[in-house]
Amino acid sequence: MKLYDLDASGNCYKVRLFAALARIELELIPVDIPGGEHKRPPLADLNPLGQLPILQDGAHVVWDSQAILVYLAGKYGGLAWWPAHPLGQAEIVQWLSFATNEVQHSLCAARLVEKFGYTLDKDAALAKSPAVLSILDRHLERHDWLAMGRPTIADCAVYPYVALAPEGSVDLEPYGHVARWMKRMEDLPGYLPKP
Amino acid sequence: MKLYDLDASGNCYKVRLFAALARIELELIPVDIPGGEHKRPPLADLNPLGQLPILQDGAHVVWDSQAILVYLAGKYGGLAWWPAHPLGQAEIVQWLSFATNEVQHSLCAARLVEKFGYTLDKDAALAKSPAVLSILDRHLERHDWLAMGRPTIADCAVYPYVALAPEGSVDLEPYGHVARWMKRMEDLPGYLPKP
Repeated sequence: MKLYDLDASGNCYKVRLFAALARIELELIPVDIPGGEHKRPPLADLNPLGQLPILQDGAHVVWDSQAILVYLAGKYGGLAWWPAHPLGQAEIVQWLSFATNEVQHSLCAARLVEKFGYTLDKDAALAKSPAVLSILDRHLERHDWLAMGRPTIADCAVYPYVALAPEGSVDLEPYGHVARWMKRMEDLPGYLPKP
Repeated sequence: MKLYDLDASGNCYKVRLFAALARIELELIPVDIPGGEHKRPPLADLNPLGQLPILQDGAHVVWDSQAILVYLAGKYGGLAWWPAHPLGQAEIVQWLSFATNEVQHSLCAARLVEKFGYTLDKDAALAKSPAVLSILDRHLERHDWLAMGRPTIADCAVYPYVALAPEGSVDLEPYGHVARWMKRMEDLPGYLPKP
């Protein structure tokens, strides 16, 4: 099973992290992002968005890091990470959306500008970050994990760009519950350190 | 089953549209958004993000429109809309992420500024819109529906802000495959017209 991958990408790290925790073996295929390999065929034919990560499992191709988490957990990870019942799935999808929308357009965007020179509005990204982290902190004040009272793919989707946020000059210090949740993630057997 | 709702919201419309197509009965509870009802308890206690829609099904509360679609389809909608196998679920989640990230921060954001006076960067939103619609158009050139060759919650998540895009001065005219997909949506039995 191949993962088209970029080491520094938080979205790729979501998948590598989950695979490590769930003991799923992936063959990592590094992609030449500066050379635009992801924007040309054959990769551009695998993902209409021209982005990484992309998972190729035999004839099956999945793009979007959240969708890859659902696929890997559902097919290989077992029900602990992605349950079969709609309420648990919905509880997790709430946080997959939070990762894709709120986290992506705050913590992640600030890092993309600072570390990789993306032409995004860093001030706007930084301005949004405290609200996003406060939502997370208030939730984690009353819960050890984002969903279902146990580690799931929800945590694997949200943790990477929170852990990488200092690379975008976002200060995590005020968010003690977030810090303790990150520590719980890092103590999980099989945890893969951030890039 | 209660949906805390705002008629003009495309995110609420995603849920109302799917419920209409799948013949799921919802009690709509209009929320006083200008009065900030969604930012105060009891609603703020139901959704940590302080947003609509929120679904309340007995003791179960689900926020985030994509998560509500997963819940409703999984619990009441049947396997046609949200399958039980990981590959089909992942295929759909790809487009749920596309709705939450790409569509939300282009077509939807432009409409929020123009119609509701949100302080977002409308030029940036409009600049992103053609790329988002082109991705959709190229996909729909080869597929009648976004995922699994049939109508699913993926279509219900993406259609609303595409259909409402002209309210943000986004021109849909160049995207013929998108137009034909919208027509197929509108021809589905039970289709609920956009607000």
